[in-house]
Amino acid sequence: MTLPANELQERFALARSMAFEAGAIALRYFNARERLVIETKADAQDVVSIADREVEELIRSRIAASFPGDAVIGEEYGVSAGTSDYTWVVDPIDGTSPFVNGMPTWCISIAALRGEEIAIGVIYVPCNDELYASAMGMGATLNGKSLRLDESRNIRNAVTGIGANHHVTPAAVASIVEKLLDAGGNFIRNGSGALMLAYVAAGRLVGYYEPHMHAWDCLAGYCLVKEAGGWHHPFPVQGDGLTKGSPVLAAASGAVNDLRAIAGL
Amino acid sequence: MTLPANELQERFALARSMAFEAGAIALRYFNARERLVIETKADAQDVVSIADREVEELIRSRIAASFPGDAVIGEEYGVSAGTSDYTWVVDPIDGTSPFVNGMPTWCISIAALRGEEIAIGVIYVPCNDELYASAMGMGATLNGKSLRLDESRNIRNAVTGIGANHHVTPAAVASIVEKLLDAGGNFIRNGSGALMLAYVAAGRLVGYYEPHMHAWDCLAGYCLVKEAGGWHHPFPVQGDGLTKGSPVLAAASGAVNDLRAIAGL
Repeated sequence: MTLPANELQERFALARSMAFEAGAIALRYFNARERLVIETKADAQDVVSIADREVEELIRSRIAASFPGDAVIGEEYGVSAGTSDYTWVVDPIDGTSPFVNGMPTWCISIAALRGEEIAIGVIYVPCNDELYASAMGMGATLNGKSLRLDESRNIRNAVTGIGANHHVTPAAVASIVEKLLDAGGNFIRNGSGALMLAYVAAGRLVGYYEPHMHAWDCLAGYCLVKEAGGWHHPFPVQGDGLTKGSPVLAAASGAVNDLRAIAGL
Repeated sequence: MTLPANELQERFALARSMAFEAGAIALRYFNARERLVIETKADAQDVVSIADREVEELIRSRIAASFPGDAVIGEEYGVSAGTSDYTWVVDPIDGTSPFVNGMPTWCISIAALRGEEIAIGVIYVPCNDELYASAMGMGATLNGKSLRLDESRNIRNAVTGIGANHHVTPAAVASIVEKLLDAGGNFIRNGSGALMLAYVAAGRLVGYYEPHMHAWDCLAGYCLVKEAGGWHHPFPVQGDGLTKGSPVLAAASGAVNDLRAIAGL
């Protein structure tokens, strides 16, 4: 019989090894895409679809081989029900827009829930060879180095990440930008919400806000931020929350109140 | 006697070699900063000041050794007058905010004017080992691969970069975001205007707009965009234009009219 802690550690090890393997495949497509687009003007959207599918298939096959009872939710292939306490939540390539356009700010995002708790969060950034890894009660690391957020950072002495998609009106996005700048903040938006959440865990950004994200875009980042000592808005993992989406906000302690006020959360 | 074309080619070769050398120094500071901030909570602003100064000093010493008659304008040390037709315009580290916060989107930006023409534009991105290089009439390359913009790209089927600083009000930044999204566009902001201009030259972004930039932030990027087949708003290189700053807009042909309308340029 396997103890619960070992069950978690074995899955955490699998998440890290899958992230590297998936990243290598995605990076081959990314580098080939540069050649295709610049030399042949091929349709970039086709390329990323193949990459997304192949990466998610790889991750699903690795989970099925090691933990056949676990459920899986992925951006490309939806929900596969399970029989264990664990549900994997996977975005094979987060940052589709940077990926198809040739920018390095995309990542592999792999999370796992144990019941309703976010138990594992791993994000791998192939273009910079950065592995962000966290598991419930085990802390967060970047390439093996422990991450611990600085309580003296706030929206005025650090940078905040923002994101938006077609669920949000242009006026609403503009309002977020204006409120953040009016409050003395500054922002970046690099095209990958998962990566910007990892940056929050690493102290590179002091917070991240996006009015609507899916579970596969944010759960790994949420685990990283929490394990690095930060705070995140609750995500509705019950019922259809895992497929419907929710507002996303995560921050170091010194930025929480300001960002909650800006987001109205 | 050196012919004018050789004069340009020799300076172009120097710009490329200086960019690599400067990038290696800056990268050492960047990597040391990560350790300092995470392990000792040292003041990150001091670190980048040392890095900026040391990188600009290196570039100035290399120019003085090879072309002692050339003028130099740098972000850190201001204007050094010259006697030749050439004026170097240098930002030792563009993207101070990403640099001090540990994000990879910063670069070395080296331009040279011959008279009032932008003759050389070289941008090096140490964290991704990318060298963007261009010279008047010689085209633009990324790590040796020729760059040529795709005329079918526009703000609706590609991504636009934006930037702003304290010269621009929060309401004005919000207005740019809202107009761009209302027009069917999408945006990124990675913290380095020079790097986003290089991304325009590489076709990763379809355009870049910032209401106010200095010459050292944009001239290298302008050269890259023009040599890749794109368009840029004129920069006032006469009189005190080189030290005062100007609105900056550069784009692939299919995005020029839409972005000029948004910027009012």
